[in-house]
Amino acid sequence: TAPLAYKMAVEEPLSLDSLSLAERDQQTKREQGVNDASPMRLRMEKFVKEQQKEIVWALEQVDGNSFRVDEWQRKEGGGGITCVLQDGNVFEKAGVGVSVVYGTLPKPAILKMRANHKKLGEDIENIPDSLEFFAAGLSLVVHPKNPMAPTVHLNYRYFETANPDGTSGAWWFGGGSDLTPAYLFDEDAIQFHKSLKEVCDAHDKDYYSRFKKWCDTYFYNKHRGESRGVGGIFFDDLDETVRDKENTFAFIQDALKSFVPTYVPIINKRKDMPYTEQEKEWQQIRRGKYVEFNLVHDRGTAFGLNTPGARVESILMSLPLTASWKYMYEPEPKSREARLVEVLKTPKEWV
Amino acid sequence: TAPLAYKMAVEEPLSLDSLSLAERDQQTKREQGVNDASPMRLRMEKFVKEQQKEIVWALEQVDGNSFRVDEWQRKEGGGGITCVLQDGNVFEKAGVGVSVVYGTLPKPAILKMRANHKKLGEDIENIPDSLEFFAAGLSLVVHPKNPMAPTVHLNYRYFETANPDGTSGAWWFGGGSDLTPAYLFDEDAIQFHKSLKEVCDAHDKDYYSRFKKWCDTYFYNKHRGESRGVGGIFFDDLDETVRDKENTFAFIQDALKSFVPTYVPIINKRKDMPYTEQEKEWQQIRRGKYVEFNLVHDRGTAFGLNTPGARVESILMSLPLTASWKYMYEPEPKSREARLVEVLKTPKEWV
Repeated sequence: TAPLAYKMAVEEPLSLDSLSLAERDQQTKREQGVNDASPMRLRMEKFVKEQQKEIVWALEQVDGNSFRVDEWQRKEGGGGITCVLQDGNVFEKAGVGVSVVYGTLPKPAILKMRANHKKLGEDIENIPDSLEFFAAGLSLVVHPKNPMAPTVHLNYRYFETANPDGTSGAWWFGGGSDLTPAYLFDEDAIQFHKSLKEVCDAHDKDYYSRFKKWCDTYFYNKHRGESRGVGGIFFDDLDETVRDKENTFAFIQDALKSFVPTYVPIINKRKDMPYTEQEKEWQQIRRGKYVEFNLVHDRGTAFGLNTPGARVESILMSLPLTASWKYMYEPEPKSREARLVEVLKTPKEWV
Repeated sequence: TAPLAYKMAVEEPLSLDSLSLAERDQQTKREQGVNDASPMRLRMEKFVKEQQKEIVWALEQVDGNSFRVDEWQRKEGGGGITCVLQDGNVFEKAGVGVSVVYGTLPKPAILKMRANHKKLGEDIENIPDSLEFFAAGLSLVVHPKNPMAPTVHLNYRYFETANPDGTSGAWWFGGGSDLTPAYLFDEDAIQFHKSLKEVCDAHDKDYYSRFKKWCDTYFYNKHRGESRGVGGIFFDDLDETVRDKENTFAFIQDALKSFVPTYVPIINKRKDMPYTEQEKEWQQIRRGKYVEFNLVHDRGTAFGLNTPGARVESILMSLPLTASWKYMYEPEPKSREARLVEVLKTPKEWV
């Protein structure tokens, strides 16, 4: 092989193209910072990190305790920040996590994703053997102690592939938020859905009804024949076939920013309500079903647990501190517990 | 179409062949009872039902409380008996279930099973579009209250397909038994493995070492990098390529019959040991990992939850009454808890 000096003289100079996506993004951040003209990767990362701080702060005000903050690196590329408040005054377990992943999609994964994203290898003759990708998102799950206070889950994420020439390839946003009470207060479900509908309506009049249905379908414990909770919104694959990137990001921002003003009033209303030991037991039974959904059906959890180098404790922060499985437990007919199960078997329209 | 009387006169008489496998077995049982000359289906069903009674009786003597007994039918064919003792004196939850399933394997399932069982459609040109099958087995999981007393699991099952002409096609046995302590007493693990080795050795000197390894490989929480417990034996696909049906059934019988004399002395030694609140908490953390294995990795649970008309409460009787997930919980270095985790990360040879 030719000596290095010769190669440097006659071949192309070392360009940005020879850096990995992660390295290029690091360089851009260092040299230019992040602003509205930056690549969406950097804007989404910045946004979810800011939101994580705000949400953690707001939940700390409710609980009176502080979150533990763990920053971690993924040796395959990227990393994240996991914040957990455990056994607090109000929250049994609250986890707010941000993750940023740089990786490589092998050809079979590219071919699979093409079904939903035509931009991925538009030229069917020239589908590359692998593609660099980027994913960033914020996930949170809050399990309150008081059985009258509902569990809440939220996740917003951005996914992008890089073309071999370094430009952005396919991109899409996904996410949603849903509420899981052990005791159903209709006014909470209504307020939660109303707030999501307002956010959706401000961007597209079709979003709410589509995403509400999608949520009911997705967060469904098929083996039990019941929904995980009273729903909310869920969507995936929001790409240029739905709306342009800028407007979709604006929607994602509004949706995520609406979390604190929506959930905090609900938790404040419920956190100090009196409850009996039996009611706490019912909450534990419902927690068991939450665990079933997350471990048996949730695609995000399965994807995470199967990702090489994944941080298992960050993925499973979604599980409650405690859960219970009683054989053949059935609520009393016409009880509040029975009404919840009825609603979970036949999802309602809340707004 | 020809009148019925004509058809009866000129066509073949209504034979056993026109009955389903389940109907034929019912008829045989009614007319002839079940003895050593009966089809293996009926002998296995009779055997596991007898063993269920004996095990339930033995565990009731230990606990002082009775099992709840639920007999159920599967509308697609077959049924079972689920026995559960919950919140007893000694057992937090003990489930002993028998199930007998008659069903139909579609062609894709037949093709998949051919990989392990050549007898399934030996004639590659003439693989049928579907095959009737039979499966019977006994499963048990016992979660004691005392954190010093180990959880135990056992399952033995028989599977058979019927040829289109009504004769038995492919057949195999599977099963095993394994121990999951929260606090490791080496003598318990040694006694448990010794007893399984004795049963294995009496039938084939190679069984124990093969099935012990198989157990370590199977009951492995891949995402945690640790075994579920201290193992035991596990095997599947024991068919005529390994040993004849009669001798394999004799092995299965001995293995199942060894459960009570192996586990009861262990539980009696541990059930009244003193323990602290912290030790109970550690047990709950370990239970969380048991739930993770069963819901994320266990093929039997996944198969059950995906079977149409499955009785979910019978499948999930394996889950503990209570479990806990603490974020980033790590035992103290050099503690008993740390030693258990060490052993789970590097399975030991116990005999």
